Amino acid sequence: MQRRQFLKTAGLGAAGVAAAPFVSSAHAQETYTWDMVTSWPKNFPALGTGANDFAKRVEQLSNGRMTIRVHGAGELVPALEVFDAVAAGTAEMGHSTPYYWRGKLAASQFFTAVPFGMTTTEMNAWLYHGGGQELWDEIYAKHNLKPFAVGNTGPQMAGWFKKEINSLADMQGLKLRLPGLAGEAMNGIGVSTVNLPGSEIFTSLQTGVLDAADWVGPYNDMAFGLHQVADYYYTTVWNEPTATVETMINLDAWNELPEDLQDVIREAARASNLAMFTEFAYRNAQALETLVDEHGVQLRELPEDVIQALYESSQTVIQRQVESDDDSRRVYESYSAFQQVMRPFSDIGEYAYFKGREQVGGQSA
Amino acid sequence: MQRRQFLKTAGLGAAGVAAAPFVSSAHAQETYTWDMVTSWPKNFPALGTGANDFAKRVEQLSNGRMTIRVHGAGELVPALEVFDAVAAGTAEMGHSTPYYWRGKLAASQFFTAVPFGMTTTEMNAWLYHGGGQELWDEIYAKHNLKPFAVGNTGPQMAGWFKKEINSLADMQGLKLRLPGLAGEAMNGIGVSTVNLPGSEIFTSLQTGVLDAADWVGPYNDMAFGLHQVADYYYTTVWNEPTATVETMINLDAWNELPEDLQDVIREAARASNLAMFTEFAYRNAQALETLVDEHGVQLRELPEDVIQALYESSQTVIQRQVESDDDSRRVYESYSAFQQVMRPFSDIGEYAYFKGREQVGGQSA
Repeated sequence: MQRRQFLKTAGLGAAGVAAAPFVSSAHAQETYTWDMVTSWPKNFPALGTGANDFAKRVEQLSNGRMTIRVHGAGELVPALEVFDAVAAGTAEMGHSTPYYWRGKLAASQFFTAVPFGMTTTEMNAWLYHGGGQELWDEIYAKHNLKPFAVGNTGPQMAGWFKKEINSLADMQGLKLRLPGLAGEAMNGIGVSTVNLPGSEIFTSLQTGVLDAADWVGPYNDMAFGLHQVADYYYTTVWNEPTATVETMINLDAWNELPEDLQDVIREAARASNLAMFTEFAYRNAQALETLVDEHGVQLRELPEDVIQALYESSQTVIQRQVESDDDSRRVYESYSAFQQVMRPFSDIGEYAYFKGREQVGGQSA
Repeated sequence: MQRRQFLKTAGLGAAGVAAAPFVSSAHAQETYTWDMVTSWPKNFPALGTGANDFAKRVEQLSNGRMTIRVHGAGELVPALEVFDAVAAGTAEMGHSTPYYWRGKLAASQFFTAVPFGMTTTEMNAWLYHGGGQELWDEIYAKHNLKPFAVGNTGPQMAGWFKKEINSLADMQGLKLRLPGLAGEAMNGIGVSTVNLPGSEIFTSLQTGVLDAADWVGPYNDMAFGLHQVADYYYTTVWNEPTATVETMINLDAWNELPEDLQDVIREAARASNLAMFTEFAYRNAQALETLVDEHGVQLRELPEDVIQALYESSQTVIQRQVESDDDSRRVYESYSAFQQVMRPFSDIGEYAYFKGREQVGGQSA
């Protein structure tokens, strides 16, 4: 199912005019129309609209030479089949998140989120300046894909629980929706985890299939109405201190693009990364206020023994994966070494500032 | 001194082919060559190279239709005359930072940094999603300029001091290089401040014209060799929890651009914003390690009484400005209301995560 359609227009030869040193580089104006399958409901706040925004940027920056048709989850392929669909060329592009593919590509998880790992600033610094992108390219290329970061949710909350958690014992036997490495870490402390597409969380909580669920943060969680089916919102950030949203591109389609359209996609992705991250920051802040003030949501933090147990379990899960999978070992070595360099500056920079701002008495003027 | 040169090539008519719904939108291919004057030495780490990277992005995304010639500080105009030069059309663009223009436009400072104010995440969220860009457009338009955020240094350190500071008394009479609102706040606690271009800091410290100086952070400070002329590096983040790097464009030149090249500049600026911020994060982390391990730099934090006095002085300075200048009042009302919404989420998100990561025992696996 190749949907690419194109139209060759007359090529413009370079007009060599001696008096004017700047010649138009317009060459054969081939146009491209691509399909992008996504893991989000069509127009879902920040994620689905972020896919739309990215598509719009590509269209603008290519001056109309490239059009991307955005498909919501389930329209062409189900939410969790985006990777396979793009690898196979069913669609030219996808919009999703790497850790959804842990079943077929364990190392993918390090590009989304590591429990107790890097922040958004650190993760983006690694991808753009620390060799992260190159490793990501390499492991996705084995699946005929080219990836880019195209957004970020920022730090995610631990999630919605139907019952209050007062100790590690209260976690035993819970059924929890939580993807990625963090889901495995939860399994290690006696929780039973599953990954479900976001659209299935509400009903699963309501019917008792789930006792608890992480989704994203206040903005997206409220959009699915999760506050209506679980009383306690555990805000502790541990599982996803950042979460990369990706676009992946079928490698054959990518290689057929002229270089300037490859530039357009790469830079539209970078611009979209910042646009989505800052949108989440603001909309989460607004939604948090609404959840507490208008819906009476109870905010909670996970007890210390639970956090400590999750930390230890996370380290075990990561070590096990690194020892059994060569790609995971190479990616995590790079990730881990980078984090080691970044931490001292993050601590005297962003972290120290938060502490200082709190100490002097809160809000400015 | 208008340097714009252009070449009109033959316009491409839309080729209407019934079977192909996607037509090339190529229209008259006018090319543009613009000059960009900057406040940084040519190729200066992250700031000067960031100007180059932005220019390169514009060239790539415009597919060669737009070329930007980057000029270091002093090549066409001095570092601190960028605003006037671009407003007058001496160059089409500038690359600098808004708070350098406080003498002619007090409200500009809120777009760079507010002491004890918003973080980088919060500032970018305000600019992109909270009405900050619209206010910035409005006040710069009065000076015939169109601004965009094109980078960010991230949190800045308090700076280099030749003598140790143990109390508020030690600050009295110090001569300090520090621009913007923070400089005024320092004046309020008995310090004498001045703004100098970065390139003049080293000599001013060496000859005793200055007792102390802020510049940016480890990466840029080391590039100017500031550790060679001052023994103590005060890392306290208070004056610039973030610092926006701007591009400003002569409004007549901007209005002459076709819409697709306006799109290119806007999105190249957004992509450059994230690229520079993450580059600073990583390079600062590396440079911090080098400063401490190889150059034996002494890291210090400002004493609590100094920080408290600076906080109070900052509030006074901001209030005074807001009461005396209508643009400042309007901009700060927006800034301040936005910060009020953002803070609770920043605190349970990014800030809480830093605390949690520290508590569980530092580095991941």
